[in-house]
Amino acid sequence: MMKISIIGAGNVGLNMFETLRKKKDVKLVSLFNRSIEKILSYRNKIFITNNINEIKKSDIYIIATNDDSIEKISNKLKSRGGLVVHTSGSTEMKTLSIHKNFGVLYPLQTLTKDKLCDFKKIPICIEANNEINYKILRKLTKISGSKCYQVDSKQRIALHVSAVFACNFTNYLFSIAHDICTSNKIPFDTLFPLIRETLGKIEKYNPSEIQTGPALRKDIITIKKHLNFINSKSSRKIYSILTEEIIKNNEK
Amino acid sequence: MMKISIIGAGNVGLNMFETLRKKKDVKLVSLFNRSIEKILSYRNKIFITNNINEIKKSDIYIIATNDDSIEKISNKLKSRGGLVVHTSGSTEMKTLSIHKNFGVLYPLQTLTKDKLCDFKKIPICIEANNEINYKILRKLTKISGSKCYQVDSKQRIALHVSAVFACNFTNYLFSIAHDICTSNKIPFDTLFPLIRETLGKIEKYNPSEIQTGPALRKDIITIKKHLNFINSKSSRKIYSILTEEIIKNNEK
Repeated sequence: MMKISIIGAGNVGLNMFETLRKKKDVKLVSLFNRSIEKILSYRNKIFITNNINEIKKSDIYIIATNDDSIEKISNKLKSRGGLVVHTSGSTEMKTLSIHKNFGVLYPLQTLTKDKLCDFKKIPICIEANNEINYKILRKLTKISGSKCYQVDSKQRIALHVSAVFACNFTNYLFSIAHDICTSNKIPFDTLFPLIRETLGKIEKYNPSEIQTGPALRKDIITIKKHLNFINSKSSRKIYSILTEEIIKNNEK
Repeated sequence: MMKISIIGAGNVGLNMFETLRKKKDVKLVSLFNRSIEKILSYRNKIFITNNINEIKKSDIYIIATNDDSIEKISNKLKSRGGLVVHTSGSTEMKTLSIHKNFGVLYPLQTLTKDKLCDFKKIPICIEANNEINYKILRKLTKISGSKCYQVDSKQRIALHVSAVFACNFTNYLFSIAHDICTSNKIPFDTLFPLIRETLGKIEKYNPSEIQTGPALRKDIITIKKHLNFINSKSSRKIYSILTEEIIKNNEK
């Protein structure tokens, strides 16, 4: 039975809590958050605290806080023993190297608190300071039902950056499309077949080989019409830059 | 039986040809293309020509050329009668107003020649100069199996612009993510669960409500790490601009 404490009740922390608390090979022993009010509703499910010194002795301490707080919290856990891991995409594992046993558990997903993710569908990227700790983390991800990848610190930041492009930025482009549709009384779901088709294609082809649109065709007349049509200065700027870059890239 | 001529053998024209030629209520009578070489392989299926005057008498002339050529071709069809339509997202219907009967059939999809699209999944946006012509175009889209939307010229350009954001630009972001993954020896499909999740979410929520990532959190440390990590000047520029715009938009 692995005893686990979760430190930080943000999206990642709470999704891990909800996933792991139902597993029989795991015992969750504490949930820490800087603001206790935010986790009061969990007090019947687990020991909660906003005092790091009160965190119960654990086999694994999962630091699921903002990146900025990882080192500070790690320092406060120094004398405890156990395996200390963080969950950050952009923080090197060696940030935790004051511990004897340390590693990273990075769930490659956009977790939102209100919605429990199905961890079976989430790849977890693992790194550890030695083979024994790697095996412990691999066991934990298997318990949670996730697909597990061994990824070093450089690959992890590459994945995080890729995820920002493929997920955060694309979502922002969807929100621009959503605004343009609704302000012209067009149901946003008119675009869904098109969006699904795009996604279906990138699962089969290299995206650069299936690029289409006015920028790729260098169709300056349409591009000008579009720029004239877009009301929002910010959306116009994004349209211009992405168009320029697609044109430049295609001329290479 | 509707007699139809297709003018232009680009992606839209050839996909329409392949969809309509199997339908029993439609007779395709000519396929025009400026370069005859490109359509020689179709000569056993349909009358082909590169001379507009040779196009056979039709009930509907579908101009599926580049936007720049629509007006010129429309002028050459002047004395023919019949219903003249174009398939462009960004060209106003009135471009065809020298005809008595005119309209627009705009398939909202990224059609590629090598891959026949399932027209059943493609919304077709229709506009016509009167109710009779609108009904003819609606009948044609029903024959092709497509979902049909009545969309005026302003809404059509709004849809086209939205599609550029939601499909062409997102595909370009996927290609950047693909490059970063492969140059770091990470299989691109590691990102698929994340991408599918993002898409699943925008079908349920307003995208602006589910935005996540370092830009939304204004997590400057991570943003700087990412910018340091990205090798390509072009990708770095896109990362910066989109990050700035997400931050600004969130502060509104």
